[in-house]
Amino acid sequence: MHEVDLNCDLGESFGNYKLGLDEEVISYISSANLACGFHASDPLTMSHTVELAKKAGVCVGAHPGLPDLVGFGRRNMNISQKEAKAMVQYQIGALDSFCKAQGIKMHHVKPHGALYNMAVKDIKLATAICEGIYEVNPQLILLALSGSEMVNAANNVGLKVAREAFADRAYEEDGTLVARTKEGSMITDEDESIKRVIRMIKENKVKTITGIDIPIKVDSICVHGDGAKALEFVRKIKAGLEEQDIKITPLYKLVSNS
Amino acid sequence: MHEVDLNCDLGESFGNYKLGLDEEVISYISSANLACGFHASDPLTMSHTVELAKKAGVCVGAHPGLPDLVGFGRRNMNISQKEAKAMVQYQIGALDSFCKAQGIKMHHVKPHGALYNMAVKDIKLATAICEGIYEVNPQLILLALSGSEMVNAANNVGLKVAREAFADRAYEEDGTLVARTKEGSMITDEDESIKRVIRMIKENKVKTITGIDIPIKVDSICVHGDGAKALEFVRKIKAGLEEQDIKITPLYKLVSNS
Amino acid sequence: MHEVDLNCDLGESFGNYKLGLDEEVISYISSANLACGFHASDPLTMSHTVELAKKAGVCVGAHPGLPDLVGFGRRNMNISQKEAKAMVQYQIGALDSFCKAQGIKMHHVKPHGALYNMAVKDIKLATAICEGIYEVNPQLILLALSGSEMVNAANNVGLKVAREAFADRAYEEDGTLVARTKEGSMITDEDESIKRVIRMIKENKVKTITGIDIPIKVDSICVHGDGAKALEFVRKIKAGLEEQDIKITPLYKLVSNS
Amino acid sequence: MHEVDLNCDLGESFGNYKLGLDEEVISYISSANLACGFHASDPLTMSHTVELAKKAGVCVGAHPGLPDLVGFGRRNMNISQKEAKAMVQYQIGALDSFCKAQGIKMHHVKPHGALYNMAVKDIKLATAICEGIYEVNPQLILLALSGSEMVNAANNVGLKVAREAFADRAYEEDGTLVARTKEGSMITDEDESIKRVIRMIKENKVKTITGIDIPIKVDSICVHGDGAKALEFVRKIKAGLEEQDIKITPLYKLVSNS
Repeated sequence: MHEVDLNCDLGESFGNYKLGLDEEVISYISSANLACGFHASDPLTMSHTVELAKKAGVCVGAHPGLPDLVGFGRRNMNISQKEAKAMVQYQIGALDSFCKAQGIKMHHVKPHGALYNMAVKDIKLATAICEGIYEVNPQLILLALSGSEMVNAANNVGLKVAREAFADRAYEEDGTLVARTKEGSMITDEDESIKRVIRMIKENKVKTITGIDIPIKVDSICVHGDGAKALEFVRKIKAGLEEQDIKITPLYKLVSNS
Repeated sequence: MHEVDLNCDLGESFGNYKLGLDEEVISYISSANLACGFHASDPLTMSHTVELAKKAGVCVGAHPGLPDLVGFGRRNMNISQKEAKAMVQYQIGALDSFCKAQGIKMHHVKPHGALYNMAVKDIKLATAICEGIYEVNPQLILLALSGSEMVNAANNVGLKVAREAFADRAYEEDGTLVARTKEGSMITDEDESIKRVIRMIKENKVKTITGIDIPIKVDSICVHGDGAKALEFVRKIKAGLEEQDIKITPLYKLVSNS
Repeated sequence: MHEVDLNCDLGESFGNYKLGLDEEVISYISSANLACGFHASDPLTMSHTVELAKKAGVCVGAHPGLPDLVGFGRRNMNISQKEAKAMVQYQIGALDSFCKAQGIKMHHVKPHGALYNMAVKDIKLATAICEGIYEVNPQLILLALSGSEMVNAANNVGLKVAREAFADRAYEEDGTLVARTKEGSMITDEDESIKRVIRMIKENKVKTITGIDIPIKVDSICVHGDGAKALEFVRKIKAGLEEQDIKITPLYKLVSNS
Repeated sequence: MHEVDLNCDLGESFGNYKLGLDEEVISYISSANLACGFHASDPLTMSHTVELAKKAGVCVGAHPGLPDLVGFGRRNMNISQKEAKAMVQYQIGALDSFCKAQGIKMHHVKPHGALYNMAVKDIKLATAICEGIYEVNPQLILLALSGSEMVNAANNVGLKVAREAFADRAYEEDGTLVARTKEGSMITDEDESIKRVIRMIKENKVKTITGIDIPIKVDSICVHGDGAKALEFVRKIKAGLEEQDIKITPLYKLVSNS
């Protein structure tokens, strides 16, 4: 039987500012990546979101970002490897506290935004992040772009890693995502999106923007809960996967099986 | 034999800004309270300071503060109990990450500045802080002003508590500290300071600003490392205590014995 | 002929976080109070909101708050008078820059949230704020709660002041607002709200929560744009005022006439 | 007669954190670049530093930086041109408020750290900065690296510009500074430093790291006040210049003459 995790960024509100349909999307996913206060979120939001995930039976992971609240962690910053390591350790510890307070386990770590994007291509940065995670808790799973330097770094460090794919993004021949600025970077047809995801899972293949097939390994699909349309797509992809007898399974079960 | 802990706030630098003679004072103390990024410190500073404490064999505790970097956490803020609880949990988790990365244990929690001062008198706030700590790790020790509502709250919650006294501050008849704005609030004579501390430890008594004796229980003495004069006093008080056969002993040994 | 200003807080978005129906509410008001980056907003949001106000022909004022983004400036903080003065000066200068860049004038200053609420009752804090404004530009108008210490402070300092009233709040006999925690503090009937406002303007009277009439002077009515319901009420109050031949007039025209 | 300005970064303290020997160095310089709260400083520090500069008769300029307090504005960030423009406008407005409150004029703007370094090579970023300044006040002078894209951008925009040189840095053949990571990037011999500066001013020439002479135009020399050694060098360079009949003259006098 085929299995896959559905992961979504949650808990990105901040103080008086609300963001995302957390309470709706949580019933469709198996893993939630929770913001940790650097690019979004705050202690109270983290506490509430861990509680929400616990009630929904969804696995919690940390979603550490760059210290750039006004830029939502989306602007590349020239941080040192030491800084990257320390800021990841700080944020995963902060989230873990709320998990402990709720008596649940923190399962995974997925870097956010620019930190994720920089680490996808930068083995040194990726290694600093992986070492940071491993030092704090070697049982944590890195959730990383399939085929990226983050996966390589995790393997080098000995850190468990789960590979994620994007339903709505086109791929280059080398397995990287087509830059958003390039035409054709987004898969806008929802049915095609779902078919592509099913093929990734069942056949371990994806057709690139140039029209050839490349191999791809997928443990998790990244979905979004930041609007009514996104939410509807999550519902649809979940139904589509289940129709194909693909079981939605939390990350940690998939990775400990691998 | 008499024993007492010497505790000092450490790791209060921030980015490019250096504060405190951490590397000098650490050789005289038994417990270090480390800032956690809200009123002072940053991930890299926390990482370095935990490493420093580990090398010195000094016990590490969290020193969570109000989210007021520009005010160094010294300005009272009207936070809710929920906010207090969540901000303490966030900060102790963040610090714990660095302790885990270094393979050491985080032993205690001492609220900082205005958070400490407000909780001294406010049983509800103190309870929220204690519950926050207890939920995350019931083995943690609260380091609190002897005779304060914080001690009462910890006892109610079932949280371990160590009582601290100040060598350089005068006391009111009800056991609270004389407000800094009042004349005579500071004990400026160093020898008298040390004598008072020794009496607190050996006789469990202190003379108030009004001249009468009141009972006081002391597990730890708070010292400072923010300048050459402060440092010299720490050296002096340590020597003074040892001369009197009072052993400098880390917090957790004193509290687990009690 | 009777005249009154309608003022509304605008530009309270922050980075990726959107707040308020600025583009809708702006067509009904005569003065906009723009957040300045301490409790809400950021440079780009300020730039856009000044541009929006210019296009709508609405007068721009600064809405400085406490340095408490996560608390949206709503938590009282124990700041010194010097700090209050400096933080107001900083924020009004920052906003003024965007006004200059757009070639428009900054007309008024209305403190936000906890800074406003504290200054309503604290003549020393209110004076520090007024002196801060006056030193930077003696032509600026303070927008303050009618009957408050802020009005007194402005008069003492020689700063122009406009008095605002709230359509949806009940009043105590001393002219202060009934605390939100008290029953009956909010006027929930919209028609009654509008009638009360009209009476304030035409008769300079308002009925208190205890049922007696007290005198009140009103230059401006505070309205909100933070939701569909609030927006509908602004439309309604504007129409209600115009039906009664009360002209909606920007603050600076009213105050320079007084 | 030859003239040159001596400029120094001032007001880089933050809250409880003190940085720089502002009160000592100010007696040797003619222009002070004041941090504006993004990479360093806070409202109270800005207010005090403007007052200090006024007393010393030193010209005040804004020193806007990236929103990166923990990194002291020294880490490159991938900001958009719109963001750069808005963050510069915000910061120069904030500082101008304190100048107005003291009844003095803000004369110039010098971007700080990573913002400066990125703009030196990036004409689009430099143009956004220059447009931002010009829109707010076309009388302001940009203080920029001699020979850089910032100078070109200012000329394109019509903004006044003063060219600065560094006494302690080696130059490449294209007039850029030798990267700090390269051997020989720093001129460590103080006498040689001063001789180089005098030659830049009198002969408009500097010897590059490769040993050839290139032309250089200098309106201002950048000096530092961040330690006893730096301070001593400022004293020495001032004396050295005056010995050679080079008059220390504030920026605005030099630029309005040009």
